[in-house]
Amino acid sequence: MYLATVVGDVVSTHKNERLQGKKLLLVRRLDLDLEPEGVEVIALDVVDAGVGDRVLVVQEGSSARKIFDDPWIPVQAVIVGVLDRVDIRGKRVL
Amino acid sequence: MYLATVVGDVVSTHKNERLQGKKLLLVRRLDLDLEPEGVEVIALDVVDAGVGDRVLVVQEGSSARKIFDDPWIPVQAVIVGVLDRVDIRGKRVL
Amino acid sequence: MYLATVVGDVVSTHKNERLQGKKLLLVRRLDLDLEPEGVEVIALDVVDAGVGDRVLVVQEGSSARKIFDDPWIPVQAVIVGVLDRVDIRGKRVL
Amino acid sequence: MYLATVVGDVVSTHKNERLQGKKLLLVRRLDLDLEPEGVEVIALDVVDAGVGDRVLVVQEGSSARKIFDDPWIPVQAVIVGVLDRVDIRGKRVL
Amino acid sequence: MYLATVVGDVVSTHKNERLQGKKLLLVRRLDLDLEPEGVEVIALDVVDAGVGDRVLVVQEGSSARKIFDDPWIPVQAVIVGVLDRVDIRGKRVL
Repeated sequence: MYLATVVGDVVSTHKNERLQGKKLLLVRRLDLDLEPEGVEVIALDVVDAGVGDRVLVVQEGSSARKIFDDPWIPVQAVIVGVLDRVDIRGKRVL
Repeated sequence: MYLATVVGDVVSTHKNERLQGKKLLLVRRLDLDLEPEGVEVIALDVVDAGVGDRVLVVQEGSSARKIFDDPWIPVQAVIVGVLDRVDIRGKRVL
Repeated sequence: MYLATVVGDVVSTHKNERLQGKKLLLVRRLDLDLEPEGVEVIALDVVDAGVGDRVLVVQEGSSARKIFDDPWIPVQAVIVGVLDRVDIRGKRVL
Repeated sequence: MYLATVVGDVVSTHKNERLQGKKLLLVRRLDLDLEPEGVEVIALDVVDAGVGDRVLVVQEGSSARKIFDDPWIPVQAVIVGVLDRVDIRGKRVL
Repeated sequence: MYLATVVGDVVSTHKNERLQGKKLLLVRRLDLDLEPEGVEVIALDVVDAGVGDRVLVVQEGSSARKIFDDPWIPVQAVIVGVLDRVDIRGKRVL
């Protein structure tokens, strides 16, 4: 899992049937200063996150499929938590 | 999953039998400005995408095999959707 | 597995139910000089590690789920050991 | 899968028994200009490729094991096709 | 799989029970000139390799667990062979 922020969303009408009805969010990984780093991924969401939220992302296919209880869904990344607080070496940064 | 654009296609006559008859497309990942970034991968296609299309790519072997309902197909990346719209922080970029 | 150091911790109240009650630690990979390198990940902990500890991290979903004996837990990285000693080419560095 | 070129081969007498008798080729990933990029990997071969060939490589453990029909073979990358032709945005590059 | 060299070893007394009694080696990936590149990983060993040996490393959880015939062991990287010879484009480099 890693820290990320939700930066946008994506619409695809013509897509794999297992993804129909699923919200597709663009997330970007955050470093320890909560600054964006690296590339964006498209994640599915199970905690009703919105643009600007700091979130926990798990990026691993088997984890993702189990969350949706659908062994056939093509998915890698899922938002599994909204962050309330982050402490780095005893100092609160969020 | 990530945003990508289809940049080309690949022909291989002499290949693993499970890949026979499958269209092999070269895709390149896109960043939030929809500019190409990183390396290309060869993806199989289930939504009939063409060169120039902006697409959704899932890159994980188990997801990919389940899409083709063939546990023996050697595949990692599959195009699972064509993008209609992308919004970044409330601003439409596609 | 890789060498890492525990740099902080993360609180998320609103998260996937399988993660409830689990301690979420931020870890950063270390190079051969035991200096931090690369991005942070959020790891679960089974050896009761604390901030500042040098640890062994396994980052692979199937390994992680088996450690918790829960096939449904969405997890990639787990702290599986606390380092006592590291030798590089015959010279002790920790 | 990705485009690659075969650059060499590797001999290891003292190795895991499941790899006995398997040809180990060094392959390097190619970019859209068919120039080498990134690190080399050691791939097993099922299409009888040779040094200098441009090939298709699948790099995912489950795919690889299924190709050899051996669930115990420790392998990640396999050469699954020899490239005949590559077109980038309508222009033939191979 | 990739080429690597064994650079050190790691001791952890307080660790996951499945790792008890296993030798933990630090390995570093090698490029085509057999120079180190990239980050180190901690690998388990099944061919009795030592510091300074050039080795074959497989880095994939399922492969690794099968080598130890233990579906519960948390492991990603395993040394599966000692290199005898490496040829790059017809020229012997090891």
